[in-house]
Amino acid sequence: MEFKVGDIAGRIGATVVGDGERTVTGVAAVQDAASGDLTFCAKPKYHPHVESTRAAAVIVGEEFRGSSPAVLLRVADPYRAFLSLLPLFVSETPDRPRGVHPTAVVDPTARLGREVSIGALCVVEGRAEIGDGATLAPGVYVGEEARIGGGCYLHPNVTVLERVILGEHVIVHSGTVIGSDGFGYVSDRSGHRKVPQVGTVVVEDRVEIGANVAVDRGTLGETRIERGAKIDNLVHIAHNVTVGENAILVAQVGVSGSTRVGKNATLAGQAGIVGHITVGDGAQVGAQAGVTKSVPSGARVSGYPAMEHDRARRLNAYYRRLPALFEELKRLENRVRELEREREKVL
Amino acid sequence: MEFKVGDIAGRIGATVVGDGERTVTGVAAVQDAASGDLTFCAKPKYHPHVESTRAAAVIVGEEFRGSSPAVLLRVADPYRAFLSLLPLFVSETPDRPRGVHPTAVVDPTARLGREVSIGALCVVEGRAEIGDGATLAPGVYVGEEARIGGGCYLHPNVTVLERVILGEHVIVHSGTVIGSDGFGYVSDRSGHRKVPQVGTVVVEDRVEIGANVAVDRGTLGETRIERGAKIDNLVHIAHNVTVGENAILVAQVGVSGSTRVGKNATLAGQAGIVGHITVGDGAQVGAQAGVTKSVPSGARVSGYPAMEHDRARRLNAYYRRLPALFEELKRLENRVRELEREREKVL
Amino acid sequence: MEFKVGDIAGRIGATVVGDGERTVTGVAAVQDAASGDLTFCAKPKYHPHVESTRAAAVIVGEEFRGSSPAVLLRVADPYRAFLSLLPLFVSETPDRPRGVHPTAVVDPTARLGREVSIGALCVVEGRAEIGDGATLAPGVYVGEEARIGGGCYLHPNVTVLERVILGEHVIVHSGTVIGSDGFGYVSDRSGHRKVPQVGTVVVEDRVEIGANVAVDRGTLGETRIERGAKIDNLVHIAHNVTVGENAILVAQVGVSGSTRVGKNATLAGQAGIVGHITVGDGAQVGAQAGVTKSVPSGARVSGYPAMEHDRARRLNAYYRRLPALFEELKRLENRVRELEREREKVL
Repeated sequence: MEFKVGDIAGRIGATVVGDGERTVTGVAAVQDAASGDLTFCAKPKYHPHVESTRAAAVIVGEEFRGSSPAVLLRVADPYRAFLSLLPLFVSETPDRPRGVHPTAVVDPTARLGREVSIGALCVVEGRAEIGDGATLAPGVYVGEEARIGGGCYLHPNVTVLERVILGEHVIVHSGTVIGSDGFGYVSDRSGHRKVPQVGTVVVEDRVEIGANVAVDRGTLGETRIERGAKIDNLVHIAHNVTVGENAILVAQVGVSGSTRVGKNATLAGQAGIVGHITVGDGAQVGAQAGVTKSVPSGARVSGYPAMEHDRARRLNAYYRRLPALFEELKRLENRVRELEREREKVL
Repeated sequence: MEFKVGDIAGRIGATVVGDGERTVTGVAAVQDAASGDLTFCAKPKYHPHVESTRAAAVIVGEEFRGSSPAVLLRVADPYRAFLSLLPLFVSETPDRPRGVHPTAVVDPTARLGREVSIGALCVVEGRAEIGDGATLAPGVYVGEEARIGGGCYLHPNVTVLERVILGEHVIVHSGTVIGSDGFGYVSDRSGHRKVPQVGTVVVEDRVEIGANVAVDRGTLGETRIERGAKIDNLVHIAHNVTVGENAILVAQVGVSGSTRVGKNATLAGQAGIVGHITVGDGAQVGAQAGVTKSVPSGARVSGYPAMEHDRARRLNAYYRRLPALFEELKRLENRVRELEREREKVL
Repeated sequence: MEFKVGDIAGRIGATVVGDGERTVTGVAAVQDAASGDLTFCAKPKYHPHVESTRAAAVIVGEEFRGSSPAVLLRVADPYRAFLSLLPLFVSETPDRPRGVHPTAVVDPTARLGREVSIGALCVVEGRAEIGDGATLAPGVYVGEEARIGGGCYLHPNVTVLERVILGEHVIVHSGTVIGSDGFGYVSDRSGHRKVPQVGTVVVEDRVEIGANVAVDRGTLGETRIERGAKIDNLVHIAHNVTVGENAILVAQVGVSGSTRVGKNATLAGQAGIVGHITVGDGAQVGAQAGVTKSVPSGARVSGYPAMEHDRARRLNAYYRRLPALFEELKRLENRVRELEREREKVL
C-alpha cells in the first residue's frame, strides 16, 4: 500500500511539518526504519533516532523540538496514533493459501463457501458450513453442523464443536475450545449424574477470542458472545452466559453459568463472576475482583467480595491504617485510665 | 426412546394431572415443544406457553394454577426435575462412528478393544491400550503405554501422555492435557536443573474433566483423580495430587503439588490450594479462596488466607465498618480531651 | 548407566555406610526397589522398608539408626538428594524416533537440522527452521519462519506460531501456544478496532514452559523469555513482556503487557501482575497476589493490592483482631460515658 503523508496526517489529526505529498509504503520502529517507512517516537530517549532516521515520516509528540530528515506528524499521543494506522499497512491475520489442503479431512456433506482456506490436517465434520473467505489454519477442528461465518479466521489447533455458530469475521486464537460441555450434574448421595448439555454457542460478528480459552455450550439454549466483544487468553465462559456487545474480557477471567455481562462492560484480568447475575452495560470490574452479586450499569467495582471501587479503595486505605488505629486506641485507653484514677482520688 | 408419562412421574416424584398412559418420545423447551415432547416450565412468565403448548407433558411447579392441553407433572423444582430426566432422551456424548479412521496413526503394537472409535488424525502410540467401546474423537493423542478404559470418551484434540491410565467411562473435553511434567527443579546459584518426572497419572472410573485442563504426572508415583470426581475447565492439577472420590473442582482452580483433596470436597471457581496439605472430605472451599493450610473434613473456608467461612464473613462485616470505627474513635478522643480539660480546671 | 555408590555419594555429599565400590544401575521407590537400584527413604514410617530392601543403595537421613542389606548414603535431605540424582538415570523427555514421520506436513522450504524428530501429523510451515536434534512430538505446529533451536523438545499438540524463535534445549509442554496475538485494540464509540500484532516472541535457551500456557507476541518488537526461566501450566504472558533469566512463574500466573519480570524472580501460583511495571530481580510475589506497581529487587510482596509481605502479614493479623477492637472501643466508650456522668454530678 502507498499513502501520502498528508492523508495519513488527516486520519490521525496530525500537524504536518514538511512535505505532505511524500508517500509512505510501510511501517517500522524508529531505529529500524528504511526509506519509505512511517514510524513514530513516543519517548524523549528516542529523539536522537528521529533526527537521524531514514524513514519517510515520523509521528512525534507535541514536545519534540528537534529537526529530522523525515516529514514530522505532530500529535498528542504518537503511539496510539501509530497503532491506529497499522491496519493500513499490515493484515490483522496472516495470509493463507485458498483451497483445501490435501491432508484436511472434510466430510462430503460439509458445505464450503467460495475462497475458503482449509489448512493441513483440519477436520470438518458432516453438514458443517464454512463461509466465504473463511480461513481454517492447520489442525482446526469443526464439528458436525457447526457454522463458521464468512471471513472468519481460526488460528492453528482451534476446536469448534458440533452445532456451534460463529458469525462473520470472528477471529479465534490457537488452542481455544468453543462448545465444550457445561459443568452440570444432578447430585445425590451416590454421586454426580451428568446432565447432557444439549444447547450450543453463538459467537456473533467481529468477536475476537484469545488463546486457550474455553467457552461452554448452553445446557439448554445457548451461550452467546455478542458482536464486537473481545476475549483475551485463558478465559472461562460457562454455559448459558451472555457476553454483551463490545465487552472486554481480559486474560484469565472466569464467568459462571447463566450470567449476563453487559454491553461495553470490562472485566479486568483474573476477575471471577458468580453465576446467575448481571454485570450492567458499561460496568468495569477490577482485576482479580470476585463479583458475587449483580453490578449496576456503568458501575466500577473491585475487591472480594466486589464492591463499588471508590468504597473499596477507601476501605483499603483504612485497612492500611489499622496498626495506627490499634495504637491510638491503646493511648486513649491509657488517658481514660488516668482520668479514672484522678476521679478515684477526687471521690 | 419412549416413556409413559406415569413412569416419568415416578422417577421425579411428580403428581400427575391428566393421562399417565400418554407417551413421550423427546424433550424440548416449552415454546418449541412438538407433539410427543416432554418439557418444563420453571418461571411464571412462561405459564402462557404451558396453556397453549403442543407438548405431550409439561413439568410444572406447585404454583402453576392454569390448565393445559398437555399432561401436567407437578413437582417442587421443575428445572431440576427436567435436567434429571435429560439422560433418558439425550446421550451424554455425541455418537461417533465405530472403527479406526483411515487417517488415524495407530502403532501396530497398540491394543484396541471391541467397538472402539478412533477418529480422524488421532495418534495412538506403541503399546497403548484402548478399551472396549472407547471413543477417541478426531485429533486425540494417546501416548506410549497409556491405557484408556472401556467406554471412555475423549473429545477432539485431547492429549493423554505416556503411561497415563484412564479408568472406565471417563470423559475428557477438548484441549485438555493429562500427564504433562510436574513443575520440579533442583535449584542452585547456576539456575534450575529439571527433575525428570518419572511418575504418572491415574484417572479412575466415571471422572469427567473439562476443557483446557492440565493434569501433571507424579514426580515419582502418581497423580490420582478418584472415581466420580468432576473437574471444570482450565483447572491446574499439579504432580502427586490426589483428588478424592466425587470431589468437584470448579473452573480455573489450581491445586499445588502433593496436596490431597478429600472425597466429596468442593473447590469453587479460581480457588488456589498450596502444596502438601489436605482438604478434608466434604470440605467446601469458596471461590477465589487461597488455602494455605489443611482444611478439616466438612469445614467451609473462604478468603485469603482462607479461614472458616463464617469467621471470614464476620471479619468482612467489621472491615466494612472501618470508616465508622475510625469516626467513633475520633469522637471518643474528643470526649476524653473534653474531660481532661475539665480536670485541668478542677485541679 | 552404571555408577559406583562411592561416586554417587560424592555428588550429593553423602557419608557412605558400606561398600562404596558397589554399582547402581537404576532408580526406584524403596518399596519397589530391585537388585541394582538406588532408592531413598525420607520418612521414618518407611524405615522398615530400608531394613528389608533389595536395593543396592539407599539414601537415608541423619536420623536413620537401623541396619540394611543395602549400602547407606547418609545426607541431610534424602528426597532432594535423590531428585538431584534422577537425571543420571532417567531422560528429561521421552525418546522419540529420529526422522520425519510420513504423515507430517513439512513445507519444502523448511530447513531441518540433523537428527531431528518430526512426529506424526506435525505441520512445519514455509521457511521454518528446526535445529539439530530437536524433537517435535506428534501434532506439533510450527509456523512460517519460526525457528526451533537445537535440542528443543515440543510435546504433543504444541503450537508455535509464525516467526517465533526458540533457543536451544527449550522444552514446551502439550497444548501450549507461543506467539498468539497480543490483546490490543484502538477503541472509540463504534467499538474496538484490532491493532495488528506485528512483533514476535523470543524464548531463550533452556527455558521450560508448561501445559496450556499462552504467550502472546509483541505488538511491535518482541515478548521475551530469558534463558533458564521456568513457566508452569496455564500461565498467561501478554505482549511485550520480558521474563528474566531463571525466573519462576508458577501455575495460572498472569503477566500483563509490557511488564518486565526480573532475573531469578518468583511469581507464585495465580498471581497477577499489571502491565507496564517492573518486578525486580530476585523479587518474590506471593500466591494470588495482585501486583499493581513495580516491586523492588529482592522484595517479597503479597496480597491485593500487593504490599511488602511482612507488612501484609502484620495488617492481616490486625484484621483478624477487628472484632476485639470493636469490643474494646465499646468498653472504652462506656468508661468515658461513666466519667462524663460523674462530671455532671460534680459540676
